[in-house]
Amino acid sequence: MTEIFHAGISGYRGRMGRAVSNVLDARSDVVVAARFDRGDAVDLHLCDVIIDFSTPESSVALAKACAEAGGPALVIGSTGLSAEQEAELEQAAEKIAIVKSGNFSLGVNMLIGLVRNAAQRLDAKDWDIEITEAHHRRKVDSPSGTALMLGEAAAEGRRVDLDDVRTKPYDGVQDPRESGKIGFSTIRGGGIIGEHSVMFASDDEILTLSHSAIDRSLFAKGAVAASAWVRSRPAGLYDMQDVLGFRQA
Amino acid sequence: MTEIFHAGISGYRGRMGRAVSNVLDARSDVVVAARFDRGDAVDLHLCDVIIDFSTPESSVALAKACAEAGGPALVIGSTGLSAEQEAELEQAAEKIAIVKSGNFSLGVNMLIGLVRNAAQRLDAKDWDIEITEAHHRRKVDSPSGTALMLGEAAAEGRRVDLDDVRTKPYDGVQDPRESGKIGFSTIRGGGIIGEHSVMFASDDEILTLSHSAIDRSLFAKGAVAASAWVRSRPAGLYDMQDVLGFRQA
Amino acid sequence: MTEIFHAGISGYRGRMGRAVSNVLDARSDVVVAARFDRGDAVDLHLCDVIIDFSTPESSVALAKACAEAGGPALVIGSTGLSAEQEAELEQAAEKIAIVKSGNFSLGVNMLIGLVRNAAQRLDAKDWDIEITEAHHRRKVDSPSGTALMLGEAAAEGRRVDLDDVRTKPYDGVQDPRESGKIGFSTIRGGGIIGEHSVMFASDDEILTLSHSAIDRSLFAKGAVAASAWVRSRPAGLYDMQDVLGFRQA
Amino acid sequence: MTEIFHAGISGYRGRMGRAVSNVLDARSDVVVAARFDRGDAVDLHLCDVIIDFSTPESSVALAKACAEAGGPALVIGSTGLSAEQEAELEQAAEKIAIVKSGNFSLGVNMLIGLVRNAAQRLDAKDWDIEITEAHHRRKVDSPSGTALMLGEAAAEGRRVDLDDVRTKPYDGVQDPRESGKIGFSTIRGGGIIGEHSVMFASDDEILTLSHSAIDRSLFAKGAVAASAWVRSRPAGLYDMQDVLGFRQA
Repeated sequence: MTEIFHAGISGYRGRMGRAVSNVLDARSDVVVAARFDRGDAVDLHLCDVIIDFSTPESSVALAKACAEAGGPALVIGSTGLSAEQEAELEQAAEKIAIVKSGNFSLGVNMLIGLVRNAAQRLDAKDWDIEITEAHHRRKVDSPSGTALMLGEAAAEGRRVDLDDVRTKPYDGVQDPRESGKIGFSTIRGGGIIGEHSVMFASDDEILTLSHSAIDRSLFAKGAVAASAWVRSRPAGLYDMQDVLGFRQA
Repeated sequence: MTEIFHAGISGYRGRMGRAVSNVLDARSDVVVAARFDRGDAVDLHLCDVIIDFSTPESSVALAKACAEAGGPALVIGSTGLSAEQEAELEQAAEKIAIVKSGNFSLGVNMLIGLVRNAAQRLDAKDWDIEITEAHHRRKVDSPSGTALMLGEAAAEGRRVDLDDVRTKPYDGVQDPRESGKIGFSTIRGGGIIGEHSVMFASDDEILTLSHSAIDRSLFAKGAVAASAWVRSRPAGLYDMQDVLGFRQA
Repeated sequence: MTEIFHAGISGYRGRMGRAVSNVLDARSDVVVAARFDRGDAVDLHLCDVIIDFSTPESSVALAKACAEAGGPALVIGSTGLSAEQEAELEQAAEKIAIVKSGNFSLGVNMLIGLVRNAAQRLDAKDWDIEITEAHHRRKVDSPSGTALMLGEAAAEGRRVDLDDVRTKPYDGVQDPRESGKIGFSTIRGGGIIGEHSVMFASDDEILTLSHSAIDRSLFAKGAVAASAWVRSRPAGLYDMQDVLGFRQA
Repeated sequence: MTEIFHAGISGYRGRMGRAVSNVLDARSDVVVAARFDRGDAVDLHLCDVIIDFSTPESSVALAKACAEAGGPALVIGSTGLSAEQEAELEQAAEKIAIVKSGNFSLGVNMLIGLVRNAAQRLDAKDWDIEITEAHHRRKVDSPSGTALMLGEAAAEGRRVDLDDVRTKPYDGVQDPRESGKIGFSTIRGGGIIGEHSVMFASDDEILTLSHSAIDRSLFAKGAVAASAWVRSRPAGLYDMQDVLGFRQA
């Protein structure tokens, strides 16, 4: 952390770009070498790594340009990429190191790794998995994308497909809960920033792994942590599980 | 508590009847004067109070017999009574004291009173109410009857009808949450005995009132506590809110 | 809420004064008629109510001036007043309406009322009370002042003195927990804004009443809510329990 | 699980011995081949594995006898062994497979592994660890042995010694919390079976890993699961982390 590196901010006028800018300004080991937005010219050679929260199109264009120039590394937080755009990122990642993620919170990504780990070791026959999330009253999609990522981690740990075991919210009179299913429940109210909880319940005990956001700046901080990690990696497409070392072995 | 009273157990072969029997046996201030079931003859004069977990028909028949005999008092935990049967209980309650409830846990009934109280004082415009419950994997109805009782208490505190403000579980993409609504979410897994939680969430803070069952015997204990309370009351139809003194003023 | 009122801010350069200023600016039913600090001249007649987060000396001086002028009403959030200074406020409150509180969060004050209520009705012989609080790593006093207010509310509900029943944190090997005691435990870590929880635990069930702060602005908002309430009250010394209507009956 | 094995119960008249007996009786893949207590003669050749909740002396004597006879494997839950007795077990474990643990709950042991894992990856400079536990009012030692095991797992993950970083319960006015410390807090009340929670709190987010016991039989079930695992292992001294596969790689 004593070595200084040079970071660029792509999409710097957006909400996340400004948040990333604030986080970088507060660190003594980073120089912000470039701030740019869609259509701005940028000298890629100034940067060791670029943090990009923009649009799918801009992200893909940036990745191509960096791949052609042989650098810098990228941290991409844009969401909603098509399968084709994802494929273009993968191609760029043959030349440069890219971290791509839908949630840069270190805590959430830690949680994802722990959930996969626990789901792998706790027998699906005995342990029921239930995922609960709570967000502010303005959030319109449920379950949250992060809750679904947690569900996918649990399913991966059990070597099943989430689509095959995911249940609809319980409502009314139904058959008893089946073993192996993964349930989801959602709370919406007030200004709740974001709470996620994964419960493993057996007949005699409950293991609960949960995450609570205190401050919205945490997502920007996670992206910056990813940028410090990725700038010295070999070419490849990484996610936050790699940054945290969950795929080491 | 130093004065000894005589209790009868109606429906004593059922699960709840046996649990009530165990609780009564452990108390030094009660003599079990009669144990009976559907069709058994019973001398009502032996009892100061009868605790009844049987069927709607048996409960109504017992209430009529007690009303005619001028006693004893009753504690009724049978569920699923028709409007007509409820009316027959009300008629009997003109002659004798009856406590009737769908949940005899002291803690749950305390919670119901607190929720009504909080809902009355916290402005519906600012505070979103969300009710969550968790039970074992074999429970087939959701939300639980107790969760609905909590929702009714919240609605009563706000002087609205629960049916008008109750929302279906959040699922998929929807409009943002409306003020004044009451949300419900359900968890099913393992051997969870029973958890209920009522959250009041504003933009800046969350108030949560919750209950957790440790041991299934608590429902029997609550019915016995109600029997000690009701045996010296004037005729009338009471519930656990009366037993706890929530309707005193 | 449609009628506009005029508020003054005493101690407006302090952290709380600025927070109150922001909250007032965001409301359409209040005009900020005066902002002042220690030593500034102020025309009391411009204000229907003054919100004061200053020092014990300034608060007492302000209260005396308002009492002499026959108004305006006051909301006082200064802490650390001596018994003598408290007595001077009481004297001023014979002439004007004053709300004084150590915590203006509506949710915390709601919680205090509910805890008193529950403690009054749940038998101390059967129900153990445990109070837990969590705050950020920089908080140096424990338990928090609010945790102690909750303990006092519980003790008041049980008609005992908190000093007689408060236990030190459990540590090492001790005698089993005595009935009637009130325990406290403290968590310090990260950026936790403020969590308080009061647990009533019997052999068979647990009732938990808890509060969680999402945003630090909530304390300023509570003080402003108190100002809207107090401006039309008769002379007297009130606290947030009065504002919320917990002492109505 | 289809192959039947033969288990012995040592200390079968004790509370844990009886609980183990009940669990074994409910399984179709085990035959209870021997039940014995201190001083009883037992034919070791009848058993594939012996589950022992007795005294340090009896456990050591049993381990020596099994080591001399070349089997069976052992599951030992006796607590309070001296360093010398522990050394005698280690010596026996050169000849036979032994699982020894202070807590056989699968969930608690899963939690221990997850806590070690998280503590290793979350920077001590940024993440404060706080461990909370709650038990019934009769428990006289605090923090619980399991809370200390969790603290040791966290310290191990951070490559520090728990004794160097463990803090006393917060009480009164103190210096702000130091980075790298591990805090403990304890709740005692009612009939709480056992709750443990490990919180990792940064400035912006909280990760919480927790365990809740629903039924006391879970400890016996864990010992039986360990017996099914150990009967086919090579000689060695194992604990529940091995049974769960946390030391596999």
